[in-house]
Amino acid sequence: MSALVMGHMNPDTDSIIAAIAVADLNSKRGIPCEAGAQGAPTPETKFVLDKFGLTAPAVVEDVAGRDMYLVDYSDLAQAPKGIADAKILGIVDHHKLGDVTTPNPLEIWTWPVGCTGTVIKSMYDFYGVEVPKNIAGGLLCAILSDTVIFKSPTCTDADKKAVDALARIAGVADVKALGMEMFKVKSAVDGASMSELVFRDYKDFDMNGKKVGIGQLEVVALSMLDGVKPGLLEEIKKVKADRGCHSVFLLLTDIMEEGSEMLIASDDPSVVEKAFKTKPEGTSVWLKGVMSRKKQVVPNFQEAFK
Amino acid sequence: MSALVMGHMNPDTDSIIAAIAVADLNSKRGIPCEAGAQGAPTPETKFVLDKFGLTAPAVVEDVAGRDMYLVDYSDLAQAPKGIADAKILGIVDHHKLGDVTTPNPLEIWTWPVGCTGTVIKSMYDFYGVEVPKNIAGGLLCAILSDTVIFKSPTCTDADKKAVDALARIAGVADVKALGMEMFKVKSAVDGASMSELVFRDYKDFDMNGKKVGIGQLEVVALSMLDGVKPGLLEEIKKVKADRGCHSVFLLLTDIMEEGSEMLIASDDPSVVEKAFKTKPEGTSVWLKGVMSRKKQVVPNFQEAFK
Repeated sequence: MSALVMGHMNPDTDSIIAAIAVADLNSKRGIPCEAGAQGAPTPETKFVLDKFGLTAPAVVEDVAGRDMYLVDYSDLAQAPKGIADAKILGIVDHHKLGDVTTPNPLEIWTWPVGCTGTVIKSMYDFYGVEVPKNIAGGLLCAILSDTVIFKSPTCTDADKKAVDALARIAGVADVKALGMEMFKVKSAVDGASMSELVFRDYKDFDMNGKKVGIGQLEVVALSMLDGVKPGLLEEIKKVKADRGCHSVFLLLTDIMEEGSEMLIASDDPSVVEKAFKTKPEGTSVWLKGVMSRKKQVVPNFQEAFK
Repeated sequence: MSALVMGHMNPDTDSIIAAIAVADLNSKRGIPCEAGAQGAPTPETKFVLDKFGLTAPAVVEDVAGRDMYLVDYSDLAQAPKGIADAKILGIVDHHKLGDVTTPNPLEIWTWPVGCTGTVIKSMYDFYGVEVPKNIAGGLLCAILSDTVIFKSPTCTDADKKAVDALARIAGVADVKALGMEMFKVKSAVDGASMSELVFRDYKDFDMNGKKVGIGQLEVVALSMLDGVKPGLLEEIKKVKADRGCHSVFLLLTDIMEEGSEMLIASDDPSVVEKAFKTKPEGTSVWLKGVMSRKKQVVPNFQEAFK
């Protein structure tokens, strides 16, 4: 049976495209692999898949007994059901090192860059395998998405270099225009339920023994969310109760203004002031310059929860 | 302050040479680094350092407050004092993924190959940095040591390829002769205390909540150890008590016969039969074909302790 390459819960574009790309690369290296996913593609990811003629990976509910490659995460909290009974052969990631452990030696490519796609582009180069044109388009969009079109503080020179090379392979002349087109799709909230919006890019973290959920919605302009903010706040309160979280935060990131409004549902809202040295107004706080959950939010909360 | 590159407790040749090499490579990549070690070199490592004119890294007792690269391990049980207050910037390894976690994104190069030295050779190539001649000699010996001159089941084609390339750079014509010369040094037990012999290559593992120590002595012929076996058995009983271990095992590996005699000190010796389907005779068992602690011993015990 092929090994399964799969990203984290509530898959974003990087997680879906990375699974497709690593499955392609590994299969060409002689390790038969297939891509899977822990959920259906978001509207943004669907736009990317359609744009470049890629197929959404099958949703896999339980991975017990499978050989696995994890992409875009290394936290058990983000792993699928059955992970304890799967064999992890490798990890490709760009996040902090999580609590996944293995009894066997494995292959890990993790770099402190803006996107797993950037690591994967280098893996193709390292193994001397050509990036297929459609996968190059997907990887390119994953990097533009994760780095918020190069605006995120997580963006590195390696990400920009990878985008240049991938754009040439994919035949994309104007990457910024493609990025804006993608973010407009991502910004659309019409017709989506509150639950869909909260979980569009949501992750649970273990913060010093407390379960903390952090979601993020990136929009071209925050005003697009004016109508749904009260509903989103009610929804994260519900999510907090349903999942037994200490806190659930939702970042509403304005990519043009370069900052985030954070909605707060917490047993102890003082962690927010501790983490960001800014006093919330009720259940919301504006965090100027904060665009990256990974780099500007998670480490601050981890410190505040100590 | 430079970042500190450091291997595991009771450093072996791979751990010492990897620290020297990654410090060299990173510094040339623009990340100022210095090598450290959690102990003095073994006779084998000293032979390698002297042979190629390399300097033993300074012994560092406490790493609190330091930026760190870990080489040749990712288990907290093998980490130095102060690791919880250090910032881990990267890991280069060839073992199973341990329980080190980080709050920050980092660089990880871990491959399922026979030696960290093999990964490091590829990192030099990837970053387009030339391997210095003396470091090439050191890496070459680290690979010969970890793969028991290619005889260990952990040895991969990548290890052999790296040895070929490193031998050319180091100007070593006969790598097998160099390997045997090194293993003869490693086999020498004259003048060493029992404690020195047990800890020459010793690691503690967490096996399902139980602390299990596994040491290994590799000799050119098992008969060289006839005189010290009773003393070694007494010593591991003492180590078990002193360190509060559930079990301490000592592998006496005969590299010509290609197998290991394992000395046993355990609260529950039945784990040995469970792990290897072979009944020990008293406090010892011959494990035919077993040469690799990592691949042929640790996974078996991890299964047996479940």
